[in-house]
Amino acid sequence: METAVKPRTEVELEVRYAETDQMGVVHHSNYLCWFEVARTRHCEESGHHYADIEEQGHWLVVTGASIRYRQGARYGEKVVVSCALDWVATRAVQFAYEVRCEGRLLATGTTEHVWVDRKTRRHCRIPGYLSDTFLRLAGQDRLQRPKS
Amino acid sequence: METAVKPRTEVELEVRYAETDQMGVVHHSNYLCWFEVARTRHCEESGHHYADIEEQGHWLVVTGASIRYRQGARYGEKVVVSCALDWVATRAVQFAYEVRCEGRLLATGTTEHVWVDRKTRRHCRIPGYLSDTFLRLAGQDRLQRPKS
Amino acid sequence: METAVKPRTEVELEVRYAETDQMGVVHHSNYLCWFEVARTRHCEESGHHYADIEEQGHWLVVTGASIRYRQGARYGEKVVVSCALDWVATRAVQFAYEVRCEGRLLATGTTEHVWVDRKTRRHCRIPGYLSDTFLRLAGQDRLQRPKS
Amino acid sequence: METAVKPRTEVELEVRYAETDQMGVVHHSNYLCWFEVARTRHCEESGHHYADIEEQGHWLVVTGASIRYRQGARYGEKVVVSCALDWVATRAVQFAYEVRCEGRLLATGTTEHVWVDRKTRRHCRIPGYLSDTFLRLAGQDRLQRPKS
Repeated sequence: METAVKPRTEVELEVRYAETDQMGVVHHSNYLCWFEVARTRHCEESGHHYADIEEQGHWLVVTGASIRYRQGARYGEKVVVSCALDWVATRAVQFAYEVRCEGRLLATGTTEHVWVDRKTRRHCRIPGYLSDTFLRLAGQDRLQRPKS
Repeated sequence: METAVKPRTEVELEVRYAETDQMGVVHHSNYLCWFEVARTRHCEESGHHYADIEEQGHWLVVTGASIRYRQGARYGEKVVVSCALDWVATRAVQFAYEVRCEGRLLATGTTEHVWVDRKTRRHCRIPGYLSDTFLRLAGQDRLQRPKS
Repeated sequence: METAVKPRTEVELEVRYAETDQMGVVHHSNYLCWFEVARTRHCEESGHHYADIEEQGHWLVVTGASIRYRQGARYGEKVVVSCALDWVATRAVQFAYEVRCEGRLLATGTTEHVWVDRKTRRHCRIPGYLSDTFLRLAGQDRLQRPKS
Repeated sequence: METAVKPRTEVELEVRYAETDQMGVVHHSNYLCWFEVARTRHCEESGHHYADIEEQGHWLVVTGASIRYRQGARYGEKVVVSCALDWVATRAVQFAYEVRCEGRLLATGTTEHVWVDRKTRRHCRIPGYLSDTFLRLAGQDRLQRPKS
């Protein structure tokens, strides 16, 4: 069902000292925060900052995450975190991420999300005003069913 | 104006690996989180969990913090964080903290806070239902003016 | 090849205010830190604190993590994080986790790790002095090959 | 003893979702991490990345921190964190920070540090190769005694 190349957004981040642990590399939990920064930028560049999406009344709640770590990132390095929209379904979406440092692949990952209506706090369909954008980001011509 | 000994609450915390940095000790920003855990417990033991205080419509917003670090805390160690209420004024409070490891003093600090009404998002007086408790915690017989 | 019930270690954690995000629940990255606390306790209760394992010259580096989030955890709540050793292979191990709040399952996850020699910074076999313990924790009679 | 204007380095940071708490603003502990990013950049722009300073055998250990919070920072906003070297003494230094958002001052702070020799893990004098740089950053003509 995928009909087009998916746009991919890159963010350059400087490794923060506070992100390291006593192993001398970035603690593995921080990659989820980095993914989030790249996801924020990806939405923003598509025209919808996630802060506005929340303001409009919806949350994109994380329901799953998965990460493969290949090499550590070190304080003093800059990493490039990229994000693409894997797929969008009627009620869920999955983003995919890569973390690189000077070309070397440090980590890959995905996060899965569902839409939640802020007022009712219940799961809901993708907000109508976002579906064209998300379809384009996912390179799909229509909403699919979740793969999982 | 201080008329009584101030009660002090202690919390034992296990140092988390994620809290260390590449220096091999706990990153200094985590002490503010530890202070908060001790402050939460201190309020809870006085009969008012801070989660309930928020639910009742007030925030105790941090307006200042100050920390002296004397020795590092290490993964594998347990620290004891203690909290007391330094003083309570009509619109502000200050808590004081100590962090110890097996008796050794690792750090001391204070945080200053003001009351904010959640609905109006404006500064306000200490909620009436809390003032007796806070006066007792501070060992005061009446609300004082902020020292700073 | 699994020959016995796997021991499971539980840790009770109070949700920290600093762990929440503006959605009003614990930010999803913190679950990896909670898993780590439970993993630390699991190793400790088996007789080998991970701080000692590092001191002896080995790192148990995280190579993968996967989490399913079912319900949010809130400030004011206590969660129970449990950890078991899924399997142990010659050069890798996988731990499994559950996070509960008053019986309700909030999240599940796994982390995969490889052994690294601190001096050479190269992958290595499980340190000899640990293999009996890890086999017992995994309920295995011998080291298996990684499943992934 | 101050003989010149102190150079000041600015870093622009995007507020991360993970940095917010349930009050809807950035949790106060993160300002110490932001200060650190600005301090890193300030050293780097003076010609000495702190990662290299550590590599050369010295730590600049935090011994004190103090912060005044005036307004919250929100997800979706960009903040500018600036750093200057307040003073440099034979064995200690103090940095000062400001956090702004579109001109509005959100917070100010200072951190105090001492030099530690990585090999001996003992306090030491400022490494000789750094003193000219630090004197210039502090706008001093010679090392002073700590003010505290």
